[in-house]
Amino acid sequence: MPISTPLTSLLGIRHPILSAPMAIIAGSRLVTAVGEAGGFGILGGGYGEKEWLSLEIAKLQNASVPFGIGFITWSMARQPELLEMALAARPRAIMLSFGDPKPHAPRIKAAGCLLICQVQTEEMAKQALDASADILIAQGTEAGGHGASRTTFDIVPAIVDLAAGRVPVVAAGGIADGRGMAAMMVMGASGVLLGTRFYASIECDGAEEAKKRICAASSGETVRGVIFDVSRQIWWPAPFTARTLINDHARRWMGKETELIHNIEAVTAEYFAARDAGNFDVAGVFAGEAVGLIHDIPPAAVIVERIVTEADQILSGRRNFPAARATP
Amino acid sequence: MPISTPLTSLLGIRHPILSAPMAIIAGSRLVTAVGEAGGFGILGGGYGEKEWLSLEIAKLQNASVPFGIGFITWSMARQPELLEMALAARPRAIMLSFGDPKPHAPRIKAAGCLLICQVQTEEMAKQALDASADILIAQGTEAGGHGASRTTFDIVPAIVDLAAGRVPVVAAGGIADGRGMAAMMVMGASGVLLGTRFYASIECDGAEEAKKRICAASSGETVRGVIFDVSRQIWWPAPFTARTLINDHARRWMGKETELIHNIEAVTAEYFAARDAGNFDVAGVFAGEAVGLIHDIPPAAVIVERIVTEADQILSGRRNFPAARATP
Repeated sequence: MPISTPLTSLLGIRHPILSAPMAIIAGSRLVTAVGEAGGFGILGGGYGEKEWLSLEIAKLQNASVPFGIGFITWSMARQPELLEMALAARPRAIMLSFGDPKPHAPRIKAAGCLLICQVQTEEMAKQALDASADILIAQGTEAGGHGASRTTFDIVPAIVDLAAGRVPVVAAGGIADGRGMAAMMVMGASGVLLGTRFYASIECDGAEEAKKRICAASSGETVRGVIFDVSRQIWWPAPFTARTLINDHARRWMGKETELIHNIEAVTAEYFAARDAGNFDVAGVFAGEAVGLIHDIPPAAVIVERIVTEADQILSGRRNFPAARATP
Repeated sequence: MPISTPLTSLLGIRHPILSAPMAIIAGSRLVTAVGEAGGFGILGGGYGEKEWLSLEIAKLQNASVPFGIGFITWSMARQPELLEMALAARPRAIMLSFGDPKPHAPRIKAAGCLLICQVQTEEMAKQALDASADILIAQGTEAGGHGASRTTFDIVPAIVDLAAGRVPVVAAGGIADGRGMAAMMVMGASGVLLGTRFYASIECDGAEEAKKRICAASSGETVRGVIFDVSRQIWWPAPFTARTLINDHARRWMGKETELIHNIEAVTAEYFAARDAGNFDVAGVFAGEAVGLIHDIPPAAVIVERIVTEADQILSGRRNFPAARATP
């Protein structure tokens, strides 16, 4: 039984499950696989690597399913030609995260494209609605990669109340199974966006070693901070920080950010060398708190099917809540 | 339609809603009101103020409803006679938070009392199960007052999985309405524990000004840290910090904890003077992220009824999910 929501109608999809635009690793393979499974895949345009984007977009040109393309707003704003390149691929939606969507919204809407805005506070949600966003993604701090400090359980109902039914709200951050999806639907979300869960899928272009570390990690083994951005000399604006697995590099520098900055040239050189060598004791695995719920690397279609089935069983009452049972 | 769970059977209550043992302000009035409304009230034994405890326990002696008494474990451990005083009042349960329950568990169980342990990590949950805890409370960082860093949406399913049905798991942190309760039941909780929501109730012994500030605050206007503990010179062990409303005192010292310590005698004097004067620009209001969902100061019975009704409507499917509708 499909779960129909305003989101599924708007995007023309079967299941209200979106895959996050994880920079570079959410490529055309993952986007297509999620779309073919009935969800909505979003290409990870990230900071805006033109060559990569051009290649991946070309592979999506003949996609038989709707798809989206996502950008880090503040970074894409420096290369507006990338937005044109993306729009030319005729995505169903452009997703903008981390920055003011307003300067880009008119161009996106004029192209007949839906505008998805990811927000982490009520203020950002108001800014997105002012920019005529069609869909809001309320992202909690549990999320992997970049985000802010408010928790999913806090920010989702706050944004649902603020949107007041005008646009669908999608929950993101910490969701990796059907009970998480069901809980968010109960709180008023129209759908869910999952990153880390799809990272550990066959079609994700992430490194095998990174996927294995995600499967092995417990949910307490991630940390949110600036260490990995500073090490790469990527200067994110406030209030954004990144959640990663806790590895040797994180343990070495957590709480010593000033010292890190004082040694930055050496650290950056060491960091990029490690990354190029696939050494994830140093290189960051950008992953969320849901790692504790992730133990395998299946095809994306299996992930979609598994989550939808579990959520539907809970929501439609065909499966009793694990602990609660309403008695007459 | 009551929501029956293993928790309601175990505690002998109608509704799986517990009021948190907020130190000093969760007195016999609140405990009785919550109990009479069908929930389970827990007296806020806190650090262990003997005179207060003795007075409040005396008022509970003839209570017609089951009740609990809660302690800050590491602080109570210094005055074990307080546990004896509590057990003599014949509570249905003793709730221990923030410290190893093992040394106290045999005495509690021997008195025929249930042991409720609040935990913030899997390791603490294992410790509590080793101590034969009868009920686990999985507390997320959204909670007001003391707690740790893992979020409710992360820690609840982790502890549910770890408990594996052996004991009921209660969700705490950020819950203040029926949809939050329903979401947690969907994730496998047997019930919920609410602090801040009951703070803003008529029967709570907190200051009126503090209650008003809770009603006025948005959910982004709280912060977790050590400023208020350090200002009071209460030295909490790791990993515990406290969430409070952001007031002038918090704004003054956030990120300047070292400077605060360098000025501690003056700050402490100023802090206690302000607290005694009821000046909440300086004195801390210990409150959770759910403040954004709290807008009134009703009787505790109204809170219980309102939350149970909303959660039941969602869980029993009599109310459609705000956004989702399963279609055949």
